[in-house]
Amino acid sequence: MAIPDHALVRNAGPLWDEATHYPFLDALAAGSLAEDAFRRWLAQDYLFAKDLMAFQAILLAKAPRDWHKSLIGGLAALEKEMDWFESHAVRLQLNLDIRPPPTCRRYTDFLMRCAYTQPQPVLLAILFGVETSYLAAWSALVPSGPCAEFIERWSSADFAAYVAALGELAERHPHEAAQEHFNEVLTHEAEFWKMSWEG
Amino acid sequence: MAIPDHALVRNAGPLWDEATHYPFLDALAAGSLAEDAFRRWLAQDYLFAKDLMAFQAILLAKAPRDWHKSLIGGLAALEKEMDWFESHAVRLQLNLDIRPPPTCRRYTDFLMRCAYTQPQPVLLAILFGVETSYLAAWSALVPSGPCAEFIERWSSADFAAYVAALGELAERHPHEAAQEHFNEVLTHEAEFWKMSWEG
Amino acid sequence: MAIPDHALVRNAGPLWDEATHYPFLDALAAGSLAEDAFRRWLAQDYLFAKDLMAFQAILLAKAPRDWHKSLIGGLAALEKEMDWFESHAVRLQLNLDIRPPPTCRRYTDFLMRCAYTQPQPVLLAILFGVETSYLAAWSALVPSGPCAEFIERWSSADFAAYVAALGELAERHPHEAAQEHFNEVLTHEAEFWKMSWEG
Amino acid sequence: MAIPDHALVRNAGPLWDEATHYPFLDALAAGSLAEDAFRRWLAQDYLFAKDLMAFQAILLAKAPRDWHKSLIGGLAALEKEMDWFESHAVRLQLNLDIRPPPTCRRYTDFLMRCAYTQPQPVLLAILFGVETSYLAAWSALVPSGPCAEFIERWSSADFAAYVAALGELAERHPHEAAQEHFNEVLTHEAEFWKMSWEG
Repeated sequence: MAIPDHALVRNAGPLWDEATHYPFLDALAAGSLAEDAFRRWLAQDYLFAKDLMAFQAILLAKAPRDWHKSLIGGLAALEKEMDWFESHAVRLQLNLDIRPPPTCRRYTDFLMRCAYTQPQPVLLAILFGVETSYLAAWSALVPSGPCAEFIERWSSADFAAYVAALGELAERHPHEAAQEHFNEVLTHEAEFWKMSWEG
Repeated sequence: MAIPDHALVRNAGPLWDEATHYPFLDALAAGSLAEDAFRRWLAQDYLFAKDLMAFQAILLAKAPRDWHKSLIGGLAALEKEMDWFESHAVRLQLNLDIRPPPTCRRYTDFLMRCAYTQPQPVLLAILFGVETSYLAAWSALVPSGPCAEFIERWSSADFAAYVAALGELAERHPHEAAQEHFNEVLTHEAEFWKMSWEG
Repeated sequence: MAIPDHALVRNAGPLWDEATHYPFLDALAAGSLAEDAFRRWLAQDYLFAKDLMAFQAILLAKAPRDWHKSLIGGLAALEKEMDWFESHAVRLQLNLDIRPPPTCRRYTDFLMRCAYTQPQPVLLAILFGVETSYLAAWSALVPSGPCAEFIERWSSADFAAYVAALGELAERHPHEAAQEHFNEVLTHEAEFWKMSWEG
Repeated sequence: MAIPDHALVRNAGPLWDEATHYPFLDALAAGSLAEDAFRRWLAQDYLFAKDLMAFQAILLAKAPRDWHKSLIGGLAALEKEMDWFESHAVRLQLNLDIRPPPTCRRYTDFLMRCAYTQPQPVLLAILFGVETSYLAAWSALVPSGPCAEFIERWSSADFAAYVAALGELAERHPHEAAQEHFNEVLTHEAEFWKMSWEG
C-alpha cells in the first residue's frame, strides 16, 4: 500500500515507517511467527481494543453532529472485532482476563488521559493515527498462509473506507496539537509491535 | 400496553403514570394537537436526543463487556432517529439550531451531571428509565392519524426489544441509588410533556 | 454596593438585579425573616457549597498556572465556610444530610455538567458569576441584627478581594460562551432566593 | 527513616525499596551529583507536579467531606512548591516550558487516566503512594551540602504530618484495587529516579 496522502502522515517523518513495518508482521505473513509471539500479540491487542472502545465512546460524547455516523460505525465494528478476538481466544485456549502488561498499559494510559482532557479535534487525530497506521501495516502484507484472515480483516475495503472518513474529518477539523498527538500514537504503535515481537 | 414488569417501575409509585400519560399524547393520537405544541415538542425532543447521545456514549465508555452490544445498538438507533428528526424539521421549516429552553436543559443537565459522576449501574437505571417510559407512553396510543409514524416509531418491536434488554441488564446490575435516579428521570419526563403541552 | 464594573455584569441586563436583590435578604437584614425560611436557606446553601467545592476542584484541574493561587485560596475559604455552616447546623439542630430539593439540584446539575464539558474560561465566568452576585447581594445589606455575622461574611474585604481576582482573570481570558453561562448563573441565583423565601 | 507502618507499604514487597532508594539521591546528599542530572530532575519534577496538581484536584472533586481539609492542604502546599521550583529554575536559567519526556509522561498519563476512571479510595491510595514514597526517599538522607534545602523540604514535619493523614484516610477507606495501584505508583517512582540519574 502506498503511504496515505494525508498531512498528518506526511509530517510524521520516520515515525510513520517505524509504526507500520515490523519483523513481527513480516513473520506473520510468511507463516513463520513463533506461537508465543502470536498469542502475546493477540491477548494484548484485545486488551487494547477494550480501552480503545472507551476512548472512542468518550470522543463520540464530545463530537459534533457530522462525526456521529463514522464514530458509531467504528464502535460497531470494534465490538464485532472483540467478538472475533474472543472466539480466537477460545479456540487457542488463551486467557484474556489478564492485567495489561506495561507497553499495552502505557498506550492506553495515553489514550484515556487524552480522551478526558483533550479537545475533540485532537482526539480525532489520535483515532485517525491508530486506525490509519493499522490499515497501512496490514495492507502491506499478502493475505495468505495461516493468518490470512487477520491480514484481510485490517486491509479490507470497509476498514479502508472508515479510515478515509476519519482522515477527511481530521482534515476539516485541524488543531495545533493534532500532529504532536498523532506522532505520539505512532510511537506507541512502534513500541507495541516491538513488544509483540520481543516479549 | 401493560405496565412493564420491572422492579424499578413497580417501585416508582405514581411517578410512573405521570411520566407516561399526558394530554399532549392523547391530542397527538387524536389528530387534534395544536401545531405550535407539535413543533415545540419536535424541536426540543431533538435537542434532548443530542444530549442523550452524549450520555449514552459516556455510559458505553464505562460499561463492562456484556453491555456493549445493547449500548452500541442504542447509539446507532438514536443516530438514525436524529436523521429522521432532521428530515421532519426540513419539511416543517423548523429551526433546530436553538438553545434548549429551561425544561429541556434541566433534564439534560441532570443526565450529563450523572454521566460524569455516577457509577455504571446508576447510569443504566437512568437510561432504562428514559427508554421504558417513552416506550410505555407511545405504546398506549393507537397509531393512526397524521402522527401515526411517530407512534409507530416508539412502539415498535425493535424498540421494545432494546428496552427489554436494558431492563434485563439493570436487573442483573442493581445499585442502591438506582431507584432514586430512575424516579428523577420520570419526574423530568413528566415535566417535559407538560412543557410540550403548555409551552 | 455599586454595581461591579465588569463587562459580564454590565451585559447581563436586568438579570443582575434579579439575582442580587430579594425580599429574603431584606427580611434577613431587618431581623424579620421567618425561622423556617432561614433554616431552609441555610441547609440548601450548605448543599450547594458541597457541589460548588466539586465544581471549583474540576476547574482547578483544568486551570493554567496563573489561576492556581486564586482557585486554591477559594477552595480553602469554601472549606472553612462549610465548617462554619456545620457548626450553625449543630446549634440549630438542622439536619444537613438530606437530598437537595429541585431548585438547588437544578443549579448544581448545571454547575457539574459545565464543569465536565465546558472549557476553562467558561468555567471561570461561571465561578465569577456565582461569587460576584453573592458579594453584591450581601454587601447591599447593613450588618446588624441577629444575622450580622452572615452579612459580614459575604461582604468582607477578603471575599471582595477574591471576587476581584476572579473578575480580573475572567477579563484576561474571555470566551464567546462566557456571557451566556454567566447569565445562566444569575437565573439560578434568582431562583435560589425565590425558593429560600417562598419554600 | 524506618519503613512506614502501613499495610500498603508492607504488602508492596521489594517495590518499596526500589522506589525509595536510588544512587541519584545518594549522590545528591553527598554533593556529588552531576549538574545535568540535577537540572534534568528539577525540570521533570516540576512538570510532574503540574499534573499532580490536576490529579489532586480531580480527587478533591470526588472526595467525601472528611477528606477535604487534608486534600486542600495538599493542594496549597503543592502550589507553594511550584513557586519554589519556579524560583530555582530562574536562578539556574532552566527552561520549564518543555514537553515532558517519556518517563515523566508515562507516570502522569497513568495518574490522569486513573483520576478520571477510578473510584475515590483508589485515587487516595495512589496519592498516598506518591507522597509516602517521596517522604521516605528524602527522609533517609542527611540534610547537608548544597542540596540541604531540598532534603529538608521533603523530610519536614509538615510533610510527614500530611503523609500520615493520607495514610489514615487510606486505611479507613480500603479498596480491592488499592494495592495494585499503589504498586504501580512505586514502579513509576523507581523509573523516575532511574531517568533522573541516567538521562
